[in-house]
Amino acid sequence: MKIFTFDTTLRDGTQGESISFSVDDKLIIAQKLDDLGIDYIEGGWPGSNPKDKDFFARAGELNLRHAKLTAFGSTRFAKNPVDEDRNVRALVEAGTPVVSIFGKTWDLHVKRALGITEDENLVLISETVAYIKSHGKEVVYDAEHFFDGYIANPEYALRTLEAAAIAGASVLCLCDTNGGTITGRLVEIVAEVRKRFDGIIGIHTHNDSDLAVANTIAAVEAGATQVQGCMNGYGERCGNANLASVIANLELKLGHTTIGPEKLGGLAGVCRFIAELANLPLRNDQPFVGKSAFAHKGGVHVSAVLKDSATYEHIKPEAVGNRQRVLVSDLSGRGNIIYKLKQHGLADRLEEDTRRVLLERIKQMEYEGYELEAAEGTFELLVREALHPGMHFFDVESYEVSTRAAGTSASHSTATVTLKSQDGIHSATETGHGPFDALQVCLRKCLSKLYPQIADVRLTDYKVRVLDSNKGTAANVRVLIEWSDHRRSWSTVGVSDNVIEASWKALVDAIRLELMRLTEKDETIEKAVEDYCWGV
Amino acid sequence: MKIFTFDTTLRDGTQGESISFSVDDKLIIAQKLDDLGIDYIEGGWPGSNPKDKDFFARAGELNLRHAKLTAFGSTRFAKNPVDEDRNVRALVEAGTPVVSIFGKTWDLHVKRALGITEDENLVLISETVAYIKSHGKEVVYDAEHFFDGYIANPEYALRTLEAAAIAGASVLCLCDTNGGTITGRLVEIVAEVRKRFDGIIGIHTHNDSDLAVANTIAAVEAGATQVQGCMNGYGERCGNANLASVIANLELKLGHTTIGPEKLGGLAGVCRFIAELANLPLRNDQPFVGKSAFAHKGGVHVSAVLKDSATYEHIKPEAVGNRQRVLVSDLSGRGNIIYKLKQHGLADRLEEDTRRVLLERIKQMEYEGYELEAAEGTFELLVREALHPGMHFFDVESYEVSTRAAGTSASHSTATVTLKSQDGIHSATETGHGPFDALQVCLRKCLSKLYPQIADVRLTDYKVRVLDSNKGTAANVRVLIEWSDHRRSWSTVGVSDNVIEASWKALVDAIRLELMRLTEKDETIEKAVEDYCWGV
Repeated sequence: MKIFTFDTTLRDGTQGESISFSVDDKLIIAQKLDDLGIDYIEGGWPGSNPKDKDFFARAGELNLRHAKLTAFGSTRFAKNPVDEDRNVRALVEAGTPVVSIFGKTWDLHVKRALGITEDENLVLISETVAYIKSHGKEVVYDAEHFFDGYIANPEYALRTLEAAAIAGASVLCLCDTNGGTITGRLVEIVAEVRKRFDGIIGIHTHNDSDLAVANTIAAVEAGATQVQGCMNGYGERCGNANLASVIANLELKLGHTTIGPEKLGGLAGVCRFIAELANLPLRNDQPFVGKSAFAHKGGVHVSAVLKDSATYEHIKPEAVGNRQRVLVSDLSGRGNIIYKLKQHGLADRLEEDTRRVLLERIKQMEYEGYELEAAEGTFELLVREALHPGMHFFDVESYEVSTRAAGTSASHSTATVTLKSQDGIHSATETGHGPFDALQVCLRKCLSKLYPQIADVRLTDYKVRVLDSNKGTAANVRVLIEWSDHRRSWSTVGVSDNVIEASWKALVDAIRLELMRLTEKDETIEKAVEDYCWGV
Repeated sequence: MKIFTFDTTLRDGTQGESISFSVDDKLIIAQKLDDLGIDYIEGGWPGSNPKDKDFFARAGELNLRHAKLTAFGSTRFAKNPVDEDRNVRALVEAGTPVVSIFGKTWDLHVKRALGITEDENLVLISETVAYIKSHGKEVVYDAEHFFDGYIANPEYALRTLEAAAIAGASVLCLCDTNGGTITGRLVEIVAEVRKRFDGIIGIHTHNDSDLAVANTIAAVEAGATQVQGCMNGYGERCGNANLASVIANLELKLGHTTIGPEKLGGLAGVCRFIAELANLPLRNDQPFVGKSAFAHKGGVHVSAVLKDSATYEHIKPEAVGNRQRVLVSDLSGRGNIIYKLKQHGLADRLEEDTRRVLLERIKQMEYEGYELEAAEGTFELLVREALHPGMHFFDVESYEVSTRAAGTSASHSTATVTLKSQDGIHSATETGHGPFDALQVCLRKCLSKLYPQIADVRLTDYKVRVLDSNKGTAANVRVLIEWSDHRRSWSTVGVSDNVIEASWKALVDAIRLELMRLTEKDETIEKAVEDYCWGV
């Protein structure tokens, strides 16, 4: 059966604590969602803030081939005639083919939040829906707090739906606004509504009880045919139903049609893309699309999966654009590397001796505590260095960094770095916010004339972990650094008993790798690395 | 109804890609879970790796008042007589009152993974369960892949349960090992099993379809009375059912008894504690316990919530040890501290002025990025300093640390620290493994004559987190250090844009606190601190 997908990443998603999109971001995301085959894209609340208004004003720049752009707003204010209500007029002026209107279901809210009578609220709903409809728009009616309202007063909750339906709403969407409804109860209520109304019933859930996706799926089983949610489960408080998980479940588990099996392969890519624009890491353990979603670590699982992946995988990872990864022991990891290099024809490009040296080097590094599977940048550099031993950009002659403070004043860090590159010796002394910052400013300065392109590389995350904590302050530490050059991101890793040295190694590797990439584009290597680090 | 809680954070949780706990971590977590009122704590798989074996060997150090420690393992190998099977013997030798045994349900696995007949598999199950039972253990039988197996061959799936039940298993736990089962189907199957077997039915779900918590709750509604899961939803691939969400839903939504309403207030604290030990941020949007779970950003929501919090909150945040936050002005943290200090009678011991100064200082620190709830050492020091302003052991005159390296040789760090203490100025210059090691050797040396006791304080863990990663290498970092003096452990925290300064602050605070504690024992303070930092 066709189930309509309604994405509200750009509206409800931006209510999430750490979510903020620019108008440009929103336009690019809308385009991606259209490419993915989403049916409705809710772009914002034009009456509530200038950014959303601006988004609709610029929506003409979009080239939507499938999706219907939707503007969101509330029923008119109690005091305003509908055609003089600023919020309602902003909805009409947004120029979208679809408008979603939310109204109050719960008698508690009608009294407390609006301060009007129950009948007055019904008038707000029907007048607003009818007015928008009279302007030729398709109207989705969002029944806010539907389940709480129904539990408190089922009679009244149903009357609000009736008011919207009679006024011409095309979709009656039942919202679990506070996210507190348990699946079993929610299903009963949806089934009750299904009995009383024809037409499309929508479902909009929040994840406050960790049940949002399940509640959405269960509502579909009870008769809902429009699903609302946000990509990656963004949204206020604990987020909205993760629309990516909803789509995958409906397509792969229940045999419904949402975006269709071909588009489904783009799901993981769209989720990663949106996470990038939100400047948030995509959760490794995110169902279906996360990096760990098909990663096998336990020995029993690994050996079974290598025989038959269905033994520990609920779907084929490729169906949603993801991949299987095997996170075995240090030794099997090595086996895995050879396998990967072979698969991409890279093994043949390496001399017998070079290959042995590369593998020995990887083995030694893993023994020292490097985690190459989490640091694709470092791994890619190793492979590239083995393939192009002559490609050498600079040698570090020396580095030094001091941090000092007197009394209660803030400390200062000063570094000096000396490098030897093609055009001679370069030396720089700089201060910075901490020793690592000072070192990287020096390194960039030494290289800036010869390689101005590295100005684009920036640090996005920095993590330190103690490897053998029983050695106290003398323990080995692993520094994992994430980098980005605005086009792609990668990680490098350094291990040492000295945190400065570990950080320095990761820094130098990141810069070396960027220089190698800029000098020689080698898609085979990039594919092999991505494949190894993300698994096949 | 009483629903038994079975936590497998220390076993299935550690199968998560980025989860790694030391034996010390595991012991501390087990103790916290016991304090929280968890019924079963699955500690590991003694037959599978030395770390888990070590954990059980040291379990005697634990003081469990309520929980039953549980060892996990598989049915015997097909070729081994049960009393000669190394894995089964390791289970008996683990010395726990409870053992959980997993066996195969799915005919696909029996054939593919074990390579034996269906009847042979039944013998493995019944012999292993009976053998463990004969050693006086309570046996939890984990029916691996129960739902997939049931769907493929219901007859055979039920026969495996029957084999375990007849052999004496106390719990038949139904596992959705691949995490692929849709809630509606899962409920039907649990109800079917409930009809056929008396006694306790358990449920163990994974989150691959984003349904783990819902599936667990739905299984309870269909008759399961033991719930298995991991705190924070850790676990392989997409994780196990988040036991914290399961507990909160069962207690607050369905009126069941798990850990009881009083302990429930400690839930958020335990989740944060475990996340800290895992060196993973607690997800802001984690249901019930995340920082954003009751955070209101949208204008409509904020104004409604300030009138009546039930308008946009599904439960009272305090019920699970969380707090409401309005993301405009955040004063709640401060209020909570006053409340805690009052509760322990400490507020009265502070002068009006001192109290105001303490609160201002805490407010300022939280604004700068200190997270005092995760650093009980720093918080205790603040309270002690306010109570005993005269107690002052030393002042830092200056510190300095340099790290240098030439060519490819290892780097060296040298520090100089100058302190002023009661008996005059002390200065020391030392080298160390990294800058932090060098600094702490200097600090100890300066204080060693006057306070030889501090020789016992040692670092057990060191974690660095970037607070505002969009600032790149100039970002503020938070350094969290764990200490131990062989009697107890505590954490201190330092924040700065300079990682050396942040580490130095945490180091100095740890030593100051130890000196204060040695000088004046004050159990009231220690209790209040523990209470504030980790909930009741």
